[in-house]
Amino acid sequence: MDLVKFFHMNGGVGDASYLNNSGLQRMGIMKTRRIIEEAISNLCKSNIIKYPKTLVMADLGCSLGPNTLLVGSMVIDEVAKTSQEMGLNPPEVQINLNDLPTNDFNTIFCALHEREKKLNTEKITDVHYSPPSCYFTGVPGSYFGRLFPAESLNFVHSSYSLHWLSQLPKLREINKGNVYLASTTPESVSKAYYEQFQADFLQFLRCRSEEMMVGGRMVLTFAGRTTEDPRGEESYYYLWRPLAMALQEMVSEGLVDEVKLDSFNLPWFTASPTEIMKLVEIEGSFTIDHIEIFDVNWEAWKTKKYDNDNDNDASTDDNGVGHAVAKSVRAGIETLVANHLVKQ
Amino acid sequence: MDLVKFFHMNGGVGDASYLNNSGLQRMGIMKTRRIIEEAISNLCKSNIIKYPKTLVMADLGCSLGPNTLLVGSMVIDEVAKTSQEMGLNPPEVQINLNDLPTNDFNTIFCALHEREKKLNTEKITDVHYSPPSCYFTGVPGSYFGRLFPAESLNFVHSSYSLHWLSQLPKLREINKGNVYLASTTPESVSKAYYEQFQADFLQFLRCRSEEMMVGGRMVLTFAGRTTEDPRGEESYYYLWRPLAMALQEMVSEGLVDEVKLDSFNLPWFTASPTEIMKLVEIEGSFTIDHIEIFDVNWEAWKTKKYDNDNDNDASTDDNGVGHAVAKSVRAGIETLVANHLVKQ
Repeated sequence: MDLVKFFHMNGGVGDASYLNNSGLQRMGIMKTRRIIEEAISNLCKSNIIKYPKTLVMADLGCSLGPNTLLVGSMVIDEVAKTSQEMGLNPPEVQINLNDLPTNDFNTIFCALHEREKKLNTEKITDVHYSPPSCYFTGVPGSYFGRLFPAESLNFVHSSYSLHWLSQLPKLREINKGNVYLASTTPESVSKAYYEQFQADFLQFLRCRSEEMMVGGRMVLTFAGRTTEDPRGEESYYYLWRPLAMALQEMVSEGLVDEVKLDSFNLPWFTASPTEIMKLVEIEGSFTIDHIEIFDVNWEAWKTKKYDNDNDNDASTDDNGVGHAVAKSVRAGIETLVANHLVKQ
Repeated sequence: MDLVKFFHMNGGVGDASYLNNSGLQRMGIMKTRRIIEEAISNLCKSNIIKYPKTLVMADLGCSLGPNTLLVGSMVIDEVAKTSQEMGLNPPEVQINLNDLPTNDFNTIFCALHEREKKLNTEKITDVHYSPPSCYFTGVPGSYFGRLFPAESLNFVHSSYSLHWLSQLPKLREINKGNVYLASTTPESVSKAYYEQFQADFLQFLRCRSEEMMVGGRMVLTFAGRTTEDPRGEESYYYLWRPLAMALQEMVSEGLVDEVKLDSFNLPWFTASPTEIMKLVEIEGSFTIDHIEIFDVNWEAWKTKKYDNDNDNDASTDDNGVGHAVAKSVRAGIETLVANHLVKQ
């Protein structure tokens, strides 16, 4: 399977689109807001002598929809704020939006034009500091390879993307009844998954270490786990077990071929903090300032309270959460499932 | 009319697509090949002491189709060749492909992925020098505004694009019976057209002078004229008079509203070398190394001999030239005509 060629979040603006089902991812970004702001602030301040004329950032795995420009906006605001505090004109900001080539960049580019028109016509009354000039590009390609010239980036961000593997690991045994690691998964399968993640994450770090300038900062958010055994079913329980159950039911109804389902596994891996720290150490170019695991509150997401980074006040009596989770999963993996079970 | 919002070459891969009707533009690029190569070679050689680690180029108004990656390929080849001659490793090359936001960037990005796969699997046997690492971006927006951070570009290219104005000039008189400047065009209309071109071209130069590094090079190719009077019908005779005649016939058949046609004029201007030299001098940031007018041989284009920069050997007995010209015009301006005559 050439994932680069067909894997993308559901396009368009319909009911099944990623654009309308990315609230969970938005919650994650909002929860890391303070960390992003701190990274940008430190970046500006650390270069006070040769204050950069341009801050170049990359958002890797940007996808499309309301989240795509969210981090860029945070960065622009923080650059403006920090520059004002330092009594300097803000540097220009270049925002490189990256995703696989089949991501719907056309929709992003039209949204950028609308944003610019809005900014030009809006009466700015409550801004206390001048916003930096800002330039956007779209960068198609896999971040498991080089995407940018050497030493060209100051800031790298990636949210809800690095849990996707570059390819499905080669498995020597069938992962019967599962579509991801579960308690009944053979050990060889679990090992192959970790080895693929290890190879991918090291490759990711190597490429970024070549692309980033000395002193640059990186904020990475992705699905992880708290236990050391990847077969602990932490995230699996919520996300992939219902999918596996639904597909098995479709087999029993004759809608899906059992042999095809047996060979279907998701190119996904949720790493533990220990694994991440170890891989960063092995690669050797980066040091970790801060590593943190956080939960997302599904109820807050369903009730759209996700713009508040304290989501504990969300109501929990909403029965639609399961439905919303299912739609979110579909928006993310429909192309994978369809490609394997229908077209293969 | 918000040209930025809807003006684009016809998308897709069908009979009326720009992709299948851009042979004329390809001829222009092939005819400037030696100039592009010389510019790149000089650029590499002029920086011999601080040989650039990265050569950053922008192709402005790149559109989509076989021409989109043509100039990039020429640049990559020339960088490799010059570097070998100099006995240095080639710099990395970043190619920024720019067009308006409604250009079909998705198609370009998928073509880039196919190109990369092909390069990775092809057995390279006849290459005498190592190709530079190459990175592509898509940059949506109008080049009459800033698109890139200050001092970030070494080389700017634009082919068959700068004859398009940023907007239709405000006209005080009706340009009856015409859709562009012609012998019967009132002088006030002709003057308004030139003033719009002047404002646009100066703005283009100002933006590029901010974006380009000192010592950078620029190659611009666009439709021009040899006479000083823009109403001389040089290019008009071939391109726009048949369009005006067809639309008038549609008025007489009741298919097009006469009032609408009276207010329809193309946002297009073919400048003379004298006008260009004057505007470059007024803006003041650039010096002209070379300025040249060349003809394109329509027959060569129709008979697909356009990859030869000497097109004089093309056969001239092909009756399909008019048809090919009409299809090329349609691929370029269908969105303009439809937007004005149908939707307004």
